[in-house]
Amino acid sequence: MNVTAGPDSAPLRPHADSPAVDTCAVVGLGLIGGSFALRLLQQGVRVHGWDPDEGTRAAAAEAGVVVAESTAALPATDLALLAGPTSVVAAQLRSGDLPRARVLIDACSAKGVVAEAAAAGAVDHLVPCHPMAGTEHSGFTAAAADLLDDAVWVMTPSPGQQIDHVRTALTLIVQAFSSRVAVTSPSVHDEAVAAISHVPHASAQALVRGVQRSAHADLTAALAAGSFHDATRVVRGDVDKTVELLTQNRHQVIAQLGALTEDLAVLRGWLSGGQDEQVRQWFAHPLRPSQDELTLPLATSADLAALLRAGTDGYLVTAVSDALRLAR
Amino acid sequence: MNVTAGPDSAPLRPHADSPAVDTCAVVGLGLIGGSFALRLLQQGVRVHGWDPDEGTRAAAAEAGVVVAESTAALPATDLALLAGPTSVVAAQLRSGDLPRARVLIDACSAKGVVAEAAAAGAVDHLVPCHPMAGTEHSGFTAAAADLLDDAVWVMTPSPGQQIDHVRTALTLIVQAFSSRVAVTSPSVHDEAVAAISHVPHASAQALVRGVQRSAHADLTAALAAGSFHDATRVVRGDVDKTVELLTQNRHQVIAQLGALTEDLAVLRGWLSGGQDEQVRQWFAHPLRPSQDELTLPLATSADLAALLRAGTDGYLVTAVSDALRLAR
Repeated sequence: MNVTAGPDSAPLRPHADSPAVDTCAVVGLGLIGGSFALRLLQQGVRVHGWDPDEGTRAAAAEAGVVVAESTAALPATDLALLAGPTSVVAAQLRSGDLPRARVLIDACSAKGVVAEAAAAGAVDHLVPCHPMAGTEHSGFTAAAADLLDDAVWVMTPSPGQQIDHVRTALTLIVQAFSSRVAVTSPSVHDEAVAAISHVPHASAQALVRGVQRSAHADLTAALAAGSFHDATRVVRGDVDKTVELLTQNRHQVIAQLGALTEDLAVLRGWLSGGQDEQVRQWFAHPLRPSQDELTLPLATSADLAALLRAGTDGYLVTAVSDALRLAR
Repeated sequence: MNVTAGPDSAPLRPHADSPAVDTCAVVGLGLIGGSFALRLLQQGVRVHGWDPDEGTRAAAAEAGVVVAESTAALPATDLALLAGPTSVVAAQLRSGDLPRARVLIDACSAKGVVAEAAAAGAVDHLVPCHPMAGTEHSGFTAAAADLLDDAVWVMTPSPGQQIDHVRTALTLIVQAFSSRVAVTSPSVHDEAVAAISHVPHASAQALVRGVQRSAHADLTAALAAGSFHDATRVVRGDVDKTVELLTQNRHQVIAQLGALTEDLAVLRGWLSGGQDEQVRQWFAHPLRPSQDELTLPLATSADLAALLRAGTDGYLVTAVSDALRLAR
């Protein structure tokens, strides 16, 4: 990957034409918020923060975060990250209980509900983001400065969003986190993450429930070697987080679970009918993504519209300077 | 794991009360047969072999296998492994085109069809086995002496099987491969591997097909990070092998695919009805296998019956000496 980020330990000093990020606030210092804070601290950014949990606040303070006693008590910063659960972030956006920042970003795994809440709260300086990273662990104790590095982030700006807000968020993600960014709409994001994360959580748990249902569950579990363990890793995390993933993206999950079960019923039909060549065809199609590159300007609303089209077509922003470089 | 195996490089010299395995034959020198041969060669066993592929025969000969020109040309040995595809092994058992050996074992991933074929061919010295190991690669070039080490093997002897044949196979697997053995019936095996391997292959491919169906397949594939990659690893192997896994265990796969889609439809119903506490309950049950130990004799048919019951209850043979030690 070819990014324009400076050395790891250098303070974040974006290009002359990029807005500076010298100060930052993080609301919600769990796995994602904590990791975001730790990376920016390493880069010399002054990081303020708040979390509802007292132990989390103490741990973050020890790590160098300037902890406030409430969201309202956070000072004005260049950028703030809303890193609570999706339902909490949606409530913050609707109520206006927000840190004072020139640019807001969030890290929610569902973007439709975030866009609705931002519209309802008339919050027009939010650039919605979703880093595609994480582990089955949670909390500040599991946070790490490199957790969000080399990840793919999704960004879902509204078409009328202020360009310099988009540029600030893009610059931060690409330069401070060495990450790539897919810029697309909330609905395309929600459809995509249902397919690659939310529905796979459901099918993994269905496999585990199949083993539990077995009359010989102990033997079956004893035989569950590497591939079963890998296939069901996602459901060894926090149950409440899994439920939030699915319920905050309910419409897409319902639609795709329907399509998944129909497709499995097709396979079952071929097996039942002894149509083994059709079984082979069902299995014969691996993923083969396209591969090419693009350069796009980012100065006007028309540029943002072109960026949204490119992201929806699978191009990721890999570098931010005078123009954006993209690849898929 | 506490096994009685000697040092890796020592020739296989079983206990005084165990039948010796000084010579061995392997029919089918792919990933499993090749790895089996390489480990036994390391242990000082004389290994004969045959494979339908000329290049495979040459590679095996180079590695030290004494290669014959046909199965019929293999000399008589203490033990022989049938390591071809399940459909080929079933045909060998029915037709009697078998290597001459005191004890036969196989490595097929479906045991019902193997039991039927052995009965049809009146082959009563076959102790059916299935090592739960493998990679998404195949062929002798992917074989490795340690591929089958520390694995769980399933063994499905018939209740009337000669005890010393069972003991020979158990001793070999536990001592030469440092592996544990679940002794159970063909039908319980087939039910268990459908749950932990065959149905997971189907659900993994259904997830991949979901991404392919997407109107934004390039973007969706770009977002498929670690967990999706892990969840779908099994379907990046050989399509024909996947199809054989499912079609040779057709009855169990059909039944369990039905149960899986019904269970996913239940989840979809809770999501559609907004019954989020039911969604939480659906996700709230992790696997919790039992844990304890057993010692069993192995001298009579009644002992074999008790071993079959213990294996079906999830106990694995971990050591073979005067008695068997088992744990789950």
